Amino acid sequence: MPQTDKGVKRLNNLPTPAFVINRFAMQKNCQAALEFVETKNMSIRPHIKTHKTHQGILLQAGTSSRVTGFVASTLPEIELLVKLALEQGAPYNDILFGVPIAASKLGEIDSLQDQLSEKGTIHVLVDHLTQLQQIEAHCRAHRTQGPYSVFLKLDTGYHRAGVPCDERGVSLAYALLQSKCTHLVGVYSHCGHAYDENDPSLRDAIALKDAEQIGSFLDLLDAESQQRNAQNSSNDLIVSVGSTPSMSHHYRIPRLINHNKMEIHPGNYTLYDRQQLWTGACPSKESVAGRVLCKVLSHYPDRGTILLDAGALALTKESTPQGGMCEITGHPQLECHRTSQEVTLVRTKDGSTFPFVDFPIGSVVSLLPNHSCLAAACFDRYYIIHDTTCAFDPEQEVVDEWVPAKYFTTTA
Amino acid sequence: MPQTDKGVKRLNNLPTPAFVINRFAMQKNCQAALEFVETKNMSIRPHIKTHKTHQGILLQAGTSSRVTGFVASTLPEIELLVKLALEQGAPYNDILFGVPIAASKLGEIDSLQDQLSEKGTIHVLVDHLTQLQQIEAHCRAHRTQGPYSVFLKLDTGYHRAGVPCDERGVSLAYALLQSKCTHLVGVYSHCGHAYDENDPSLRDAIALKDAEQIGSFLDLLDAESQQRNAQNSSNDLIVSVGSTPSMSHHYRIPRLINHNKMEIHPGNYTLYDRQQLWTGACPSKESVAGRVLCKVLSHYPDRGTILLDAGALALTKESTPQGGMCEITGHPQLECHRTSQEVTLVRTKDGSTFPFVDFPIGSVVSLLPNHSCLAAACFDRYYIIHDTTCAFDPEQEVVDEWVPAKYFTTTA
Repeated sequence: MPQTDKGVKRLNNLPTPAFVINRFAMQKNCQAALEFVETKNMSIRPHIKTHKTHQGILLQAGTSSRVTGFVASTLPEIELLVKLALEQGAPYNDILFGVPIAASKLGEIDSLQDQLSEKGTIHVLVDHLTQLQQIEAHCRAHRTQGPYSVFLKLDTGYHRAGVPCDERGVSLAYALLQSKCTHLVGVYSHCGHAYDENDPSLRDAIALKDAEQIGSFLDLLDAESQQRNAQNSSNDLIVSVGSTPSMSHHYRIPRLINHNKMEIHPGNYTLYDRQQLWTGACPSKESVAGRVLCKVLSHYPDRGTILLDAGALALTKESTPQGGMCEITGHPQLECHRTSQEVTLVRTKDGSTFPFVDFPIGSVVSLLPNHSCLAAACFDRYYIIHDTTCAFDPEQEVVDEWVPAKYFTTTA
Repeated sequence: MPQTDKGVKRLNNLPTPAFVINRFAMQKNCQAALEFVETKNMSIRPHIKTHKTHQGILLQAGTSSRVTGFVASTLPEIELLVKLALEQGAPYNDILFGVPIAASKLGEIDSLQDQLSEKGTIHVLVDHLTQLQQIEAHCRAHRTQGPYSVFLKLDTGYHRAGVPCDERGVSLAYALLQSKCTHLVGVYSHCGHAYDENDPSLRDAIALKDAEQIGSFLDLLDAESQQRNAQNSSNDLIVSVGSTPSMSHHYRIPRLINHNKMEIHPGNYTLYDRQQLWTGACPSKESVAGRVLCKVLSHYPDRGTILLDAGALALTKESTPQGGMCEITGHPQLECHRTSQEVTLVRTKDGSTFPFVDFPIGSVVSLLPNHSCLAAACFDRYYIIHDTTCAFDPEQEVVDEWVPAKYFTTTA
């Protein structure tokens, strides 16, 4: 671990490329989300996929009573939440595996639920009858803790995962309600198409349509229950909605707020990135809490470029509407126009002379990634600063290191 | 580690997503490269960045006497080669760090060179005078093993890294020749623009132009030496050229073959990928030795898609001219058209009915990645099969596991 002569780790003596999180900005982002749901009388189930860390989860929970639980996208993330739940109980003990469940993963889920025992619940996501049938087969053969708690994944227009919000969704919901191996506790929609809009009124319209579809789906479900003379009421279901770009648009749905436990489940808002600067969900560049730290390797005056030692294995090749692979902190006039495995080239956007003097060879720069969820996942540790200026000055002291949960440790 | 009842690990009982290497195909790819250089009376310095493994390096070396050494793109990769060199000597002991050197990395290079002591050499790459000045400052303060062995990085048209092949390059070469802290042993070009051509005759032209530029650069350097009455001859320099798409085009350069130790340094050829299928460097899909293994999570008959549990964190978001994020082994009529963090959607290319019956929920499929160097780097282990059919049948037995060198272990 590189240290200065005085043993103080700073941004300018870290090995590069490195992933740096400004805890000050991340905490502010998390706090803003908690205050938002407080104001709107809603709940939040934060997604931990962006950072995958113990410390980040604590920031997402804050001291708010509005956190119903958490969403995770991988087994290692669930394992991390289970550990926290065993240490601290709620809200870490209410865990949703936010990807349609694969039967092959049920054994691991069972083993993690065994660790939790009565102290918490791991919910799974279902969007196809075959998944239910596979759950039932597994349940009969292996499950000892009773039925699986299930969220039904609805497609409200993003068309990635999810069953349609019509009689097909109702039919699957009823199969889940009637199975002895499942306990339907909620419906879940992603609203990911809000990522494509940078006009708040259009994102508002998407969130509203999402809500209307969920609302009419719940009405259909209640009509089916009436027809069956069943006692189920859709009012008992949790309604979990939203994505980071739509998170501030879901308040306007009285039908859902009045009768259901309505919660939003964003994840990217913890670190934000260039994509969210474009959508407008991220209020400012200062709010982009995760950056890729790198060094200037070389200057090429003959072609007006410099070379950085962060490439696709540090930034990924995610694109955004702004263009380029990232933005250099404090230098919006430059663009990272070519990225290879380990290096990135930078030039001026307008073709003017490159300001080489501002980027001495060997100097440290930080980059705003296009997509923080993907860039963070390139690293096995994050260096933490607490930088109230949000300038990522190379002299900033590293105050902590966080290790993301990327690999499953419970079973080898 | 999942096992069947009989304790045999097969592709269909691995945790997913996973990275699978068909050692049979990889060995064949490596052998073909060795046979090529043998036929053409050239040398090869394989790049290890694609796989980063001990076992892969051994395949790249084979039993050929034409392997001059290796190229690495990160410190952990160099550390891996140093370990092999200490166990087995040549050709693992001639190591080029193939990215322009950062002064901040010289301490680690020194420590690895200390381990090697007289048993081998770590060469560094230089393409700017400031790098030399920083090397000199470091050398005087810290270096105990004598001058750094240096390759001069030339830009022959790819315009990523490298000094131009004119008087600017000659000036830097002479500074390196005259410095007491450096020993100029070769010139290095990447020829990366060959990636953009899928017409062999155009790649031939690029390789030829690359050679002509290097040839005239060496002439310029010799003219400069004559003018200075110096004893240097460019004939003593190693000429290290090429990329995977250009690797079979560098034979036609008599000036270089006759006088220099000419070597090619491809890396991607070990695993190949969709990009190299497009360029034509990869002879067939069977030669694509690295695949991403995943499972079918769900079916969406309403929109003609299926969902796989391999997303951008397994495939990356690299694009290729063929379109899509990957290709499903054995199903060229399908396209992976949308990839999120943990999942990918698949549909038919021509809009025809999706063959759901061929992809039962829970079944295992393997994916040809767009760029194997990036996809492999998403994983902390590779599952190895030895599959002479190259079909990646789910019943294939896993015969080994390889762990890539991603994190530096010598200093914490």
